[in-house]
Amino acid sequence: MSDVKKVVLAYSGGLDTSVILKWLQDTYQCEVVTFTADLGQGEELEPARQKALKFGIKPEHIYIDDVREEFVRDFVFPMFRANTIYEGEYLLGTSIARPLIAKRLIEIARETGADAISHGATGKGNDQVRFELGAYALMPEVKIIAPWREWDLLSREKLLAYAEANDIPVDMKHKNGGAPYSMDANLLHISFEGRHLEDPKAEAEESMWRWTVSPEAAPDAAEYVDIEFANGDPVAINGVALKPHDLLAKLNELGGKHGIGRLDLVENRYVGMKSRGCYETPGGTILLKAHRGIESITLDREVAHLKDSLMPRYAELIYNGYWWSPERRALQVLIDHTQSYVNGWVRVKLYKGSVAVVARDSKDTLFDQTIATFDDDGGAYNQADAGGFIKLNALRMRIAGKKGR
Amino acid sequence: MSDVKKVVLAYSGGLDTSVILKWLQDTYQCEVVTFTADLGQGEELEPARQKALKFGIKPEHIYIDDVREEFVRDFVFPMFRANTIYEGEYLLGTSIARPLIAKRLIEIARETGADAISHGATGKGNDQVRFELGAYALMPEVKIIAPWREWDLLSREKLLAYAEANDIPVDMKHKNGGAPYSMDANLLHISFEGRHLEDPKAEAEESMWRWTVSPEAAPDAAEYVDIEFANGDPVAINGVALKPHDLLAKLNELGGKHGIGRLDLVENRYVGMKSRGCYETPGGTILLKAHRGIESITLDREVAHLKDSLMPRYAELIYNGYWWSPERRALQVLIDHTQSYVNGWVRVKLYKGSVAVVARDSKDTLFDQTIATFDDDGGAYNQADAGGFIKLNALRMRIAGKKGR
Amino acid sequence: MSDVKKVVLAYSGGLDTSVILKWLQDTYQCEVVTFTADLGQGEELEPARQKALKFGIKPEHIYIDDVREEFVRDFVFPMFRANTIYEGEYLLGTSIARPLIAKRLIEIARETGADAISHGATGKGNDQVRFELGAYALMPEVKIIAPWREWDLLSREKLLAYAEANDIPVDMKHKNGGAPYSMDANLLHISFEGRHLEDPKAEAEESMWRWTVSPEAAPDAAEYVDIEFANGDPVAINGVALKPHDLLAKLNELGGKHGIGRLDLVENRYVGMKSRGCYETPGGTILLKAHRGIESITLDREVAHLKDSLMPRYAELIYNGYWWSPERRALQVLIDHTQSYVNGWVRVKLYKGSVAVVARDSKDTLFDQTIATFDDDGGAYNQADAGGFIKLNALRMRIAGKKGR
Amino acid sequence: MSDVKKVVLAYSGGLDTSVILKWLQDTYQCEVVTFTADLGQGEELEPARQKALKFGIKPEHIYIDDVREEFVRDFVFPMFRANTIYEGEYLLGTSIARPLIAKRLIEIARETGADAISHGATGKGNDQVRFELGAYALMPEVKIIAPWREWDLLSREKLLAYAEANDIPVDMKHKNGGAPYSMDANLLHISFEGRHLEDPKAEAEESMWRWTVSPEAAPDAAEYVDIEFANGDPVAINGVALKPHDLLAKLNELGGKHGIGRLDLVENRYVGMKSRGCYETPGGTILLKAHRGIESITLDREVAHLKDSLMPRYAELIYNGYWWSPERRALQVLIDHTQSYVNGWVRVKLYKGSVAVVARDSKDTLFDQTIATFDDDGGAYNQADAGGFIKLNALRMRIAGKKGR
Repeated sequence: MSDVKKVVLAYSGGLDTSVILKWLQDTYQCEVVTFTADLGQGEELEPARQKALKFGIKPEHIYIDDVREEFVRDFVFPMFRANTIYEGEYLLGTSIARPLIAKRLIEIARETGADAISHGATGKGNDQVRFELGAYALMPEVKIIAPWREWDLLSREKLLAYAEANDIPVDMKHKNGGAPYSMDANLLHISFEGRHLEDPKAEAEESMWRWTVSPEAAPDAAEYVDIEFANGDPVAINGVALKPHDLLAKLNELGGKHGIGRLDLVENRYVGMKSRGCYETPGGTILLKAHRGIESITLDREVAHLKDSLMPRYAELIYNGYWWSPERRALQVLIDHTQSYVNGWVRVKLYKGSVAVVARDSKDTLFDQTIATFDDDGGAYNQADAGGFIKLNALRMRIAGKKGR
Repeated sequence: MSDVKKVVLAYSGGLDTSVILKWLQDTYQCEVVTFTADLGQGEELEPARQKALKFGIKPEHIYIDDVREEFVRDFVFPMFRANTIYEGEYLLGTSIARPLIAKRLIEIARETGADAISHGATGKGNDQVRFELGAYALMPEVKIIAPWREWDLLSREKLLAYAEANDIPVDMKHKNGGAPYSMDANLLHISFEGRHLEDPKAEAEESMWRWTVSPEAAPDAAEYVDIEFANGDPVAINGVALKPHDLLAKLNELGGKHGIGRLDLVENRYVGMKSRGCYETPGGTILLKAHRGIESITLDREVAHLKDSLMPRYAELIYNGYWWSPERRALQVLIDHTQSYVNGWVRVKLYKGSVAVVARDSKDTLFDQTIATFDDDGGAYNQADAGGFIKLNALRMRIAGKKGR
Repeated sequence: MSDVKKVVLAYSGGLDTSVILKWLQDTYQCEVVTFTADLGQGEELEPARQKALKFGIKPEHIYIDDVREEFVRDFVFPMFRANTIYEGEYLLGTSIARPLIAKRLIEIARETGADAISHGATGKGNDQVRFELGAYALMPEVKIIAPWREWDLLSREKLLAYAEANDIPVDMKHKNGGAPYSMDANLLHISFEGRHLEDPKAEAEESMWRWTVSPEAAPDAAEYVDIEFANGDPVAINGVALKPHDLLAKLNELGGKHGIGRLDLVENRYVGMKSRGCYETPGGTILLKAHRGIESITLDREVAHLKDSLMPRYAELIYNGYWWSPERRALQVLIDHTQSYVNGWVRVKLYKGSVAVVARDSKDTLFDQTIATFDDDGGAYNQADAGGFIKLNALRMRIAGKKGR
Repeated sequence: MSDVKKVVLAYSGGLDTSVILKWLQDTYQCEVVTFTADLGQGEELEPARQKALKFGIKPEHIYIDDVREEFVRDFVFPMFRANTIYEGEYLLGTSIARPLIAKRLIEIARETGADAISHGATGKGNDQVRFELGAYALMPEVKIIAPWREWDLLSREKLLAYAEANDIPVDMKHKNGGAPYSMDANLLHISFEGRHLEDPKAEAEESMWRWTVSPEAAPDAAEYVDIEFANGDPVAINGVALKPHDLLAKLNELGGKHGIGRLDLVENRYVGMKSRGCYETPGGTILLKAHRGIESITLDREVAHLKDSLMPRYAELIYNGYWWSPERRALQVLIDHTQSYVNGWVRVKLYKGSVAVVARDSKDTLFDQTIATFDDDGGAYNQADAGGFIKLNALRMRIAGKKGR
């Protein structure tokens, strides 16, 4: 049936991708290489190795990689340099992890001489697009197997039946009807979609949330945190320098403790439908505020506005899966260029679900107290200049006004 | 000295504009018309009438207008249709009131045959620009007197001396050194700038805040509020239809009670310097979230993204004082056009400083559960279509990839 | 095989769509309704009726419509209001005709109770997208049959064999290998693609061009033409009022005579590949220049710049087939709003391939000689204002400069 | 009167700047340094030295620099990388020279220890803004003397009287009423403004044009020219490698001979009024077409569209004098990044006022004949993919359509 010789599978070790593993072996009669990534999702990954071995995967074909540092340093932080938000709310926690997985799948394909990749994303979601656009961009000739778009195991019942028929372990959760939500986690966020959430007029259940306490359950005392930035990236918390992934983990801990970063929204998928998603992004929510805070004193006004005007498009590119596109790279070059003076520290106050910037300073500050003051500025600013400024800015409107417009 | 015959002064009744009133009479030897607006700032306005009379202003030249409904209906709500935020944070509470004042000053100038207007904004701020651009756009030949850019009363001491010399009452606050902040209030917000706030690395004092309790002092129980929208504007709260200004007042009350809407930021003024401002926008903060919530289910994706891409420019126009410009009006036409289906209700949860959308529904919803579901959709969506979708979207990158890019 | 009951076919009467007509009857066993549009392509349409009858189409199922006026009034002119150009060069002559055809196909489907439409566009081009996006937008449940994506008649030989086997007349051109180009014409342009043009480094043959003489063969004397505009649309030429389609035809005649409007470019298709196209748009080329000319004196600067900033996206939407999308409509509302003062006349000089605006005037002109003059302006403009204007615009850069940036 | 010690004057040697030189000496009692730039304007510059000496300028304070190569390499070519056009027509020939002059003025100020600069631009135009914004950005503390905004020599008569009174030579042209236009020239263009051109409804006189023959007077035979690009910049003509300024001079010669690059337009000045300008940009007009031609085969679609969407803002920045601003620099970083694959050659046909791209090729071409072909492509492109592509792109509109929108 197939001309696929060897396929690299994005393998979580869970039920779905285990079924896929077996189905690939059966359907394509090809060798399977598994790739399991530690993105900080907080799950034990060694069981994936054991399962893969059980399916007859060669030990050298089992890749279990800790990519947390790379993830935060090369994907999350660059994205935050642009103050990226999709549709005014979403911090793109899932979207930003996919290009890294696509990249590793292709790297492993090249290392192992594989000619195909496969993943467990459905045909209705954005993740298939993100995986596949990335893979095609990085290896144009790659074959892609998306089982959910091909096979006939489209219902949960059929999937379970296939699992049992093939001796794939099914845990109690799945036997009892499966998770009430589809979840995805990495160091930036955990997401919830589908099933119990499919009615946008019903509030999400409190029991759903995993990473954050409810604001009501958060400490009764606020906590102040200082975040230090260098070249637009956070580098230290409360004076302690941390590696990117450790820093984000620390912010997650702080945010989670204070009930920060919950989001419930209806978003527009690239494949055309609206979808309700819930997200917990504790560290990212703090980081976004803090990054805007440090930019507020260090970025030139017009550069800041230029970034703001480009951000929606940049966010769209990431959401839609175009991380590896030339247009995202071009925008990144501009964004990164703007960050060389984004240095200094920001103090945030965390309290029962909210994060607020309360102070900020920088050796590269453009805030000039002498000029900003309402008191006597000793001639630093000549108020009379404003008259000419306004007059000329008004001129075109005055000419039009005289014509009766 | 002057060819000014009659000037309409934006008159608050406070010390500064009282000094200006007298100074105008002395310096320009002209008749003065006073305009005092009730924008919901929460101050008694009748004292302004008494003071004006004392300066010899003719009764028919004293305008004290309640413009609250017009303000919210024709300025605040149109702005919120665009989800407008300046520099990622600021809800433009001061900026949006200025064009209304400019419009009334010019209307009164036409009614009273005045040839000039005057205001108390300084030469360093944005407000002078907003007043004057508006005035010039609406009456191109108007003369504008901006005393702060002209006179020599630039220090507080000189101002007080002038007041005393001219029998203008100076209250204790001013005698004791003046307010620690420059404040401005209307139904949308209260702002604080200057003096004690001029060091961006020092947290604002708790005692500064006026409209909101501190999150810590807010009720320990969350409150749910339902907001209903019609054509993009809020029309009812918890099922009770309210006029625009009553609705915003109600949201202010709710937000204030729950410590919602405080903001401390460094912003970029149009006249070129950075400035630190603190704002309380309780109702507006709730409204922004809720409006995004109702749009999330009723707006087409690309229309929503188009609006998001135009918003930064629209916000800039309002911040910079171009409300009455033809380009703001052109954008408004587009924005208003998009709101015809923005109907329905949104439920928000208010709790100790944070506001979260938890549910939303609309007869005009574009959320289609049949298609969005992860379960069997009965053929409403053909997953195989996604393969072609991805393939063609990837094509240009694959061609480039084959060329070694 | 099929659940299609009745299909409306965009039918030119040529070989390809005749084969499609027969193939639809055979393959889908369904009734066929033919729609042939007179878009000003300059072909006799009655033969299409005779052919359709020969295939057994019911007389009441044969639609031959003169849509020239609607085409120019409701599609071409609205597009020119935005000075629309795709990729800096292309005037979108093909793109703008497709949404009208899609609209008529759906209108006819509703009139005749058809449940499907069909067209002769290939699976590699943009036209399939334009037809189908339009049809889906206007009738979401419509079935679409795109034979070129379905059948096995992909080579010219197979197509001819099918035609002969089914007694479909094949003219000499096709027997001799077919046209050297794929052509499409309407009142706005004629396009050439494919075959002899597939090598972008070879110049197109002079014999290809149909509507324009070569600049070398154009008259040796220049011709001046006055074009009058009302609300952004041209309404008269040399003082003679003309209907939209007659006006465009007149401009085509003038442009064609003077060798104006040839274009040879490589463009980026929506489906992902680059493609070389040659176009003749004589009247449109004149119109674009003239429209910019009249806007130059009647539009406010910032409105003009706003339009310029939105134009590339607007052009992309039309090129990609999104005429009937809500985002194109939203942009159109803005564009149309800006045209109310775009009235007046423009004089163009036509000569051997070039068109130049040489004069323009309008009762709504914003050109103010008193202010623009380099001579004494009698105080209309105070030069000293420029000092303050520059000072404040420079302020942020001066502050940055002092920090060593 | 003044605290200016030494001022660097942008000195052409002509009447106006000679009067300014003397006026600076008299009014500010300061030392004057003259800077005369050879930008390729085609005038003898040594007379400027003699005149300066006559005014008592020290020999070491007379700067006469040939900046042609720097001008084209570091200003003109970077601008053309963005296909920059202001208001759809203007190639920014004057605008792009000003930042170079500003830079040299400041460099010379630093070398000579001057604390001020001065220029001869009027208070109504854009050039004052361009000089001064540049100067302030590069030397924030610099003092700027703009005599036209300060002195009382605002009429031509007063200027001539001052010249005669001060023994400044006045040539016949000025005695006879001065030039009929204000002109400015450099290697990119020559411009005409003012006086005889102040009526936009009157055609410019043929005698005005300097660099181009009229199309009617151009050769009767077309000329083909091959232009080679490397990294987005032209590097050779007809196979001959040329330095930037020599290459542009060669294109000017070719364009001028064929009557290419005349432009007559009404533009919007930054200071608020509309102004009529005529321009001759022979080489630039060819270069713009050629650059678009080479980009058409070498740039990715979305990168090209991103550039097109940013271009109007980039053009505005240059027109308005913000070359040395951080936002222009940020955009330049993006633009330059996109040009690394913009290599290859373009063939243009020049004939009686028009320039047309007729062929182009590149080792970095993304044009893929295998995929673009209408003939059998051997499976390089699967037409069926287009069905899914269209279906998903239409999905949101179909959902809306079902709701009756």
